[in-house]
Amino acid sequence: MIIMKADATPTQIKNVIREVEKHGLRTDVSRGDFRTIIGLIGDERKVSFERLAMLPGVKEARMIETPYKLISKEYAKAAGEKTERIVKVGDIEIGGDEVVFIAGPCAIESKKQLFTIAEGVKKAGAQILRGGIFKPRTSVHSFQGLGGGGEDDAREALSWLREAGDKFGMPVITEIRGETQVDLVAEYVDIIQIGARNMYDQDLLVSVAKKHKPILYKRHFGAGIEEFLSFTEYMVAEDNKDIILCERGILPLGKGKSYTRYTLDLAAVPVIQKETYLPVIVDPSHAAGRRDLVFSLSCAGVAAGAVGLIVESHNNPAEALVDSQQQITPAELKELITACKKIRRAIGDRHNGG
Amino acid sequence: MIIMKADATPTQIKNVIREVEKHGLRTDVSRGDFRTIIGLIGDERKVSFERLAMLPGVKEARMIETPYKLISKEYAKAAGEKTERIVKVGDIEIGGDEVVFIAGPCAIESKKQLFTIAEGVKKAGAQILRGGIFKPRTSVHSFQGLGGGGEDDAREALSWLREAGDKFGMPVITEIRGETQVDLVAEYVDIIQIGARNMYDQDLLVSVAKKHKPILYKRHFGAGIEEFLSFTEYMVAEDNKDIILCERGILPLGKGKSYTRYTLDLAAVPVIQKETYLPVIVDPSHAAGRRDLVFSLSCAGVAAGAVGLIVESHNNPAEALVDSQQQITPAELKELITACKKIRRAIGDRHNGG
Amino acid sequence: MIIMKADATPTQIKNVIREVEKHGLRTDVSRGDFRTIIGLIGDERKVSFERLAMLPGVKEARMIETPYKLISKEYAKAAGEKTERIVKVGDIEIGGDEVVFIAGPCAIESKKQLFTIAEGVKKAGAQILRGGIFKPRTSVHSFQGLGGGGEDDAREALSWLREAGDKFGMPVITEIRGETQVDLVAEYVDIIQIGARNMYDQDLLVSVAKKHKPILYKRHFGAGIEEFLSFTEYMVAEDNKDIILCERGILPLGKGKSYTRYTLDLAAVPVIQKETYLPVIVDPSHAAGRRDLVFSLSCAGVAAGAVGLIVESHNNPAEALVDSQQQITPAELKELITACKKIRRAIGDRHNGG
Amino acid sequence: MIIMKADATPTQIKNVIREVEKHGLRTDVSRGDFRTIIGLIGDERKVSFERLAMLPGVKEARMIETPYKLISKEYAKAAGEKTERIVKVGDIEIGGDEVVFIAGPCAIESKKQLFTIAEGVKKAGAQILRGGIFKPRTSVHSFQGLGGGGEDDAREALSWLREAGDKFGMPVITEIRGETQVDLVAEYVDIIQIGARNMYDQDLLVSVAKKHKPILYKRHFGAGIEEFLSFTEYMVAEDNKDIILCERGILPLGKGKSYTRYTLDLAAVPVIQKETYLPVIVDPSHAAGRRDLVFSLSCAGVAAGAVGLIVESHNNPAEALVDSQQQITPAELKELITACKKIRRAIGDRHNGG
Repeated sequence: MIIMKADATPTQIKNVIREVEKHGLRTDVSRGDFRTIIGLIGDERKVSFERLAMLPGVKEARMIETPYKLISKEYAKAAGEKTERIVKVGDIEIGGDEVVFIAGPCAIESKKQLFTIAEGVKKAGAQILRGGIFKPRTSVHSFQGLGGGGEDDAREALSWLREAGDKFGMPVITEIRGETQVDLVAEYVDIIQIGARNMYDQDLLVSVAKKHKPILYKRHFGAGIEEFLSFTEYMVAEDNKDIILCERGILPLGKGKSYTRYTLDLAAVPVIQKETYLPVIVDPSHAAGRRDLVFSLSCAGVAAGAVGLIVESHNNPAEALVDSQQQITPAELKELITACKKIRRAIGDRHNGG
Repeated sequence: MIIMKADATPTQIKNVIREVEKHGLRTDVSRGDFRTIIGLIGDERKVSFERLAMLPGVKEARMIETPYKLISKEYAKAAGEKTERIVKVGDIEIGGDEVVFIAGPCAIESKKQLFTIAEGVKKAGAQILRGGIFKPRTSVHSFQGLGGGGEDDAREALSWLREAGDKFGMPVITEIRGETQVDLVAEYVDIIQIGARNMYDQDLLVSVAKKHKPILYKRHFGAGIEEFLSFTEYMVAEDNKDIILCERGILPLGKGKSYTRYTLDLAAVPVIQKETYLPVIVDPSHAAGRRDLVFSLSCAGVAAGAVGLIVESHNNPAEALVDSQQQITPAELKELITACKKIRRAIGDRHNGG
Repeated sequence: MIIMKADATPTQIKNVIREVEKHGLRTDVSRGDFRTIIGLIGDERKVSFERLAMLPGVKEARMIETPYKLISKEYAKAAGEKTERIVKVGDIEIGGDEVVFIAGPCAIESKKQLFTIAEGVKKAGAQILRGGIFKPRTSVHSFQGLGGGGEDDAREALSWLREAGDKFGMPVITEIRGETQVDLVAEYVDIIQIGARNMYDQDLLVSVAKKHKPILYKRHFGAGIEEFLSFTEYMVAEDNKDIILCERGILPLGKGKSYTRYTLDLAAVPVIQKETYLPVIVDPSHAAGRRDLVFSLSCAGVAAGAVGLIVESHNNPAEALVDSQQQITPAELKELITACKKIRRAIGDRHNGG
Repeated sequence: MIIMKADATPTQIKNVIREVEKHGLRTDVSRGDFRTIIGLIGDERKVSFERLAMLPGVKEARMIETPYKLISKEYAKAAGEKTERIVKVGDIEIGGDEVVFIAGPCAIESKKQLFTIAEGVKKAGAQILRGGIFKPRTSVHSFQGLGGGGEDDAREALSWLREAGDKFGMPVITEIRGETQVDLVAEYVDIIQIGARNMYDQDLLVSVAKKHKPILYKRHFGAGIEEFLSFTEYMVAEDNKDIILCERGILPLGKGKSYTRYTLDLAAVPVIQKETYLPVIVDPSHAAGRRDLVFSLSCAGVAAGAVGLIVESHNNPAEALVDSQQQITPAELKELITACKKIRRAIGDRHNGG
């Protein structure tokens, strides 16, 4: 990390960047109100910080040991930037004054199903509409989402999602599973989701980040927090800081009967908020894997400081083609939203890692 | 489980018990307002339920497959008892209308230290006083609590705890670690704690249960929920139903840096509440292992439905002999209690697994 | 699964396939010596097995509940095929009479380094040469392999690998990380590796399988065995059965200091061998993460029944750019190979799940 | 740790001990051939090592940071003692030139059953006889072993075990579960076993160690290696170094179907052997939880360097009252012993962490 003097000139900044790039590294330049910070992308051991410190305009040059630097609170502070980033999607502010609720069906099954649910969740108080098209599935023998039917089917489902979002005034989000889907999905949605199973797919991360759209990025169930944040850095290194991080449950203890699909690691919420400036939300649906726990885990998530929730919702959960056990009705969603808003007020400014 | 007819006579009940005991099993008799239920303790495959069903006064006789029967909601329902038990300790109701806060130092270090902290936590709003005397420690080379100094030291520390509780109007609780400590501890405290590391110690469970005092029983960090409840049954089989269950964190994922000591499994709170009638509380201090997360995890615990919290509190955490990293001050405790009370109101009757 | 009569005609088989495809499923046809089996790929609940059973030429039609069917021993047996598949790569038989040793550097650093190591491991007794070009890395700030330098660099490194393999008479293998690398890599290597981090990347699996080259497929450190086998099915559903499965360690317990990078789950070797006909090998290097354990874990792997090992080897481990802690020298490799061959003889025909 | 000069006098040694005890610590004195080492038991921060270093006869005084010191290879080296301890039980050497096989029924059911099995395992090649009397059970409703029937039953079962051992020339071992059983068990057996579930029970450890008999100590399924070794130190601090450590499986991954009861962590074998001088054995039966994996895991254990195995064996596994799924017949035991002996020769002097 190189901190430039307050009066450093553009030429001096350019010189520093050139010096860094000479060693095969890339740079991330943060121009704060008071000073400019140059973050290094690549192996910092290749450059001489002593030499960099002596270049004109440089105030301080030092190595950052953590595998995630560009997303760290420390980096934001050094740049004089806000230590809590708000990701804006249309009028919605994720990480702002209100808890944000993302809701919709696990998988889009038909235009009618989608519109019915979209209307329901909007009335219940949700602000953003989700709907799965490319479903990651454990079994090749399971329904793979409408995206599994080929590009034409995928495009049609995407257009329904766009239309439903526009009709009910909600930005839309869907999950991407492979590099070949990036262009298509980016054409239609406001937020691109990278699911837990693709968390480690660094080529996909880079490819999505380059679209410069907000990204919802879920923690893998086997990933430590350091690893999760370290992979997040792949996207920010492409100069896309509109990343929303999502905790959705880690591996359960393997002892006896499993009462939930995953173990929701709620401590991860304040921990990540203390480490980075990115907003953190919670997915109670996949963590629980059962409808009757979604209320409690949603409330707990907001109480832990999450700035939003992504909840699977279906007008008729029992007949859903995917995840029928864990989707809640719009009526249940409404009850949950009401409680969560009160909880946000109860914790005051202690949300977001405060 | 044997359900007697509403008009079954005491002699008929006695006959059924005699028949069961003939096969080497013991019984648990629940006399509800409308009918009597006889629970079987031991291997149910040894008795003939067909034969039992034909005895006079018997309405229904059936095997229960779950390894925890006597503590199950199903059993309480069958007996016509309340499906949410309130454990009473003096005037305090654990599992009642208010969240209960248990607080105090990790380890009692001196009389002065204990009284200072007791006064502080009382003013902050805590209702029950905790203080460790027999400390389970990973290393034989660490401070083992005043109980490590022999029986006289232990007795003195226990008397301070009793005195502090009486002076500030709080029931008291301390942890027991081995069978030889049971008599001594039971003499002084209102609630006996069995810690996570002793969760599997079935001889200790039986020995403590026989004292017929309320027990705070913590889940081991490697224990599945089914296992935790199954071991709880050892105590209830001794006819002691005043058991408070406590979630305090399970093994963290072993990937990279650990940001917390354990992973607080908050889904366990509503899950256990759906399975059993026993009250469930949360220990945010040991789960976090760091002071700055205690507020968030406490709020999340109450939002998940916990009916109480046990929080390590110290007037001067930095100088504590044990767990100095995770204890909070009485001032911090007060802020936490205020927020938690609001959260309880926010979730309404959805606490306790509702 | 549909079992055709011994005298079923090609037309009858075609009719059955047409009937299945009508419902949106695909088929896998195994023509054994005595009969033909038609496996179903897709949601079996969509077809009527009663109806299929009545078609001409059909002996039996039944649903298979397991998420992995096409790779199951049961399926091979039904088709009259061998229940232990040998994957042939040139003259090498993986799953045959001898343990197969795959060795080479974690990452290819230069042509000279590669050739030196190739010669060393060949002399030590290795039969297949490995060398990493597209390195999956936790940190964007780490060396990403020569493949990180762009397509030209990748192609050059691949040509070295090919050349080294040809010169020293060893088939070659390298890892692939994203869909855009498939064509390029398939052009040069004999076996394509899909690493642990990409285990869940179903689009990549399909894309690699379509090359119809042998695949080395590693279990993710957070994946259950059922899940690992279930994802394997994505490749076999593309009619590629030359899959070598690899156990390389699962998440370690998160308690205290980690003495190894992962926990090598050796029971997985016989377990997988009992479930499927595919050969199973072990990677001791990544599991251990430290050189001094590679010998013991290699011996244990072969004793557990593994039909091969993939071992990171470097002429000068201390100076390796990646994984310097866990690579062993060719001399150490030789000692390990000698011991493993004796162990294979000691367990006799009990290798491979016997 | 205080290293005395070669010519230090008994009085000088006594003075150092007195100085240490003044601060509330205890000492462990190792008199090697060339010099004497004084290990400190308790919180080393309480003593001044600078002051100790200046006492007459002291060569060096330094703090050891690891939570296990008295059992560390470093400590043995400093004392000039052997870095691989052999635990002798009668004529049997655990940690000596041969792999040692401990076998017998999970639970003793009757005298006849025990003698039949004892004869069988002896003929198969086992050297030590095991038999459970106090069975730790998850459910209060399961068979608790003959020890569950009261002291008289326990004493009778213990006398059978003693008699069977004497008749067939095998030392005997049984598990202890609570402090009240220590005196009784120590009266009859040659090795006292502390099972996985009691690993954390420090009061029990101290109580057993004081009997000064060899102890077989099993790692808890949720315990890190550091923790396991740290608790071992409680026994050695009572001046009992005849401890045999046993790996028997850790928590399995909680993803999907479990194919084994636990995950056998075989890397723990060489890791522990590198850290401490105590012998390490493996229990394949409890790790697997199924008979058909016992052969493979036994071979893998010996290949990993274990100096012995403890295997559950029953003449009629299907009818065993406890663990019927995982016991093997004497015939299967014989095959396993034959293979393991060959494997031990195959790894040469690389057993025991070499």
